[in-house]
Amino acid sequence: MAVYTHLDDGDFRYLAGEFGLGELRFYKGIAEGISNSNFIVETARPDGQAPARHIVTVYEERTDVRDLPFFLGLLDHLARKGCPVPATIHDREGRPFREYNGKALAFIEFLPGITVSHPTPEQARAVGSALARVHLAAADFGQSRANDMGPARWRELLDGCGHDGLMGIDPALAPLVASELPAILEAWPNDLPRSVIHADLFPDNVLMLGDEVAGLIDFYFACTDLTAYDVAVTHAAWCFDPTGETFDPAISAALLGGYETVRPLSAAEHGALPLLARGAAMRFLATRAYDWLYTPEGALVTRKDPMAFARRLQFYRQNSGVFA
Amino acid sequence: MAVYTHLDDGDFRYLAGEFGLGELRFYKGIAEGISNSNFIVETARPDGQAPARHIVTVYEERTDVRDLPFFLGLLDHLARKGCPVPATIHDREGRPFREYNGKALAFIEFLPGITVSHPTPEQARAVGSALARVHLAAADFGQSRANDMGPARWRELLDGCGHDGLMGIDPALAPLVASELPAILEAWPNDLPRSVIHADLFPDNVLMLGDEVAGLIDFYFACTDLTAYDVAVTHAAWCFDPTGETFDPAISAALLGGYETVRPLSAAEHGALPLLARGAAMRFLATRAYDWLYTPEGALVTRKDPMAFARRLQFYRQNSGVFA
Repeated sequence: MAVYTHLDDGDFRYLAGEFGLGELRFYKGIAEGISNSNFIVETARPDGQAPARHIVTVYEERTDVRDLPFFLGLLDHLARKGCPVPATIHDREGRPFREYNGKALAFIEFLPGITVSHPTPEQARAVGSALARVHLAAADFGQSRANDMGPARWRELLDGCGHDGLMGIDPALAPLVASELPAILEAWPNDLPRSVIHADLFPDNVLMLGDEVAGLIDFYFACTDLTAYDVAVTHAAWCFDPTGETFDPAISAALLGGYETVRPLSAAEHGALPLLARGAAMRFLATRAYDWLYTPEGALVTRKDPMAFARRLQFYRQNSGVFA
Repeated sequence: MAVYTHLDDGDFRYLAGEFGLGELRFYKGIAEGISNSNFIVETARPDGQAPARHIVTVYEERTDVRDLPFFLGLLDHLARKGCPVPATIHDREGRPFREYNGKALAFIEFLPGITVSHPTPEQARAVGSALARVHLAAADFGQSRANDMGPARWRELLDGCGHDGLMGIDPALAPLVASELPAILEAWPNDLPRSVIHADLFPDNVLMLGDEVAGLIDFYFACTDLTAYDVAVTHAAWCFDPTGETFDPAISAALLGGYETVRPLSAAEHGALPLLARGAAMRFLATRAYDWLYTPEGALVTRKDPMAFARRLQFYRQNSGVFA
């Protein structure tokens, strides 16, 4: 949550020109995301309209520049299809991003809206529908990207934590991983429908205006994987309090109901949801546990508690009926 | 340059109500200032007008809450008098700030505009005029505040650095301070006109739209002190490149000229400017040297080079003629 790259008015004035935008009126670094630098940049529009607002992202080392054509092309594709995602602004030569001072940089449409900390069922229903619309709209997107946060990676990360590392986080964590990880990997399905998925649709990545979804953002984990796994990730992200201690059945029903009004799940997808949800919980447990152990002291990133997803994993193991 | 306090949509929705603002549409933490947490908060206006934007500041420990009635009252006073400063938004009970979760918090008008890194003489002229307007407009502001960053504090800070500390920063720094500090303190005037001064009017604290000053911001060093000292601080802040190596005579002439078109300096003030400018350079040299030595590793604040003001101090010592 920090701005790692310093850009000044001269930089933004130059870039606004390169991206065919009007005169610079305002720019400010914002606390957004955990690995890239982000700015709000406002430019005048020629005919006395309200100024245009943009998010400028400078991609720092955790984003592979080779993935940007996928991420930014996906936003354009989805926006053209009417999904509530920010379109990419292309520069005068049609490029969706630029190298600038040795880093890749993109201008993305600014969407208003607020990220909700306590979603209502109506909001969860709208999120479910928006996610389904993304899955359908992405069907004819020409690019694909492997999921580098898929099951093989969970094992790598958890092996990297080690038994002692997991025990040090919480004595319950090592036995949970030892029993659940092999069971999930063993049973992981390969024959379900695949599509582009968001793969990280937490409430922070949804901008809402009232009960409407104004924007789905932060597609930097998007990839091609099991469509129903994205439903499971979104379920794990929305249906619990942040600690993972309390499950909200009304949010769950609304989220799944909203999704299925747009894209009904097949019987096979539906039957796989309990397992996919255990996998979703394992995925965030794995990255959080790894970051918990290996985030350097004094890093600008706040460590997040892996146990919040250990609790979700236990919940899903014991309550497969929530998807019935 | 960080957000220290986490506030969520529930907080901002509640606060927007308490401050009599419309429905929350957007909020985002911004990288602004070095000691407080700041957010852009946008609320709907009732009748289809463009949304209203505000800066919300949460005052962290470096701001003394007892000073807030001065700082925020000053903004209101100056805004009412037509100075380009953001007005304070008062809550439903008329209070300019609130306690919230144990910290003081204020809503301040958002002003568009950009901070310029390479000002033009026209911009410097506008800044000089705006500063003079503040000095005149503050004359009937009822409150006063001692300058806790005045000459006595420079000595404390530099004593706190110690000879070895200063030598460790740069071998030229200790002898410069040893010769200049007593000379400046000895000659410091007490009989010049006093007023409310901004005391920190660096380019980062001026929002410009083209050649116009759209906003003077960050009055959290404002105090009652020698009016001409504020001219000297602003001169030191604007007339050099950031390293202090290059003086720009055109900026200097424009800044002083712009000031004097609105508030001509008396002969005594004019004659004191070379000394006041040495004092201004010493003030920033002192805080930067102290922070250089005592900023903890891993702090979120970027240390600034004290030598940038040592160079200004040497310049002013050798070139009193720039104020002739």
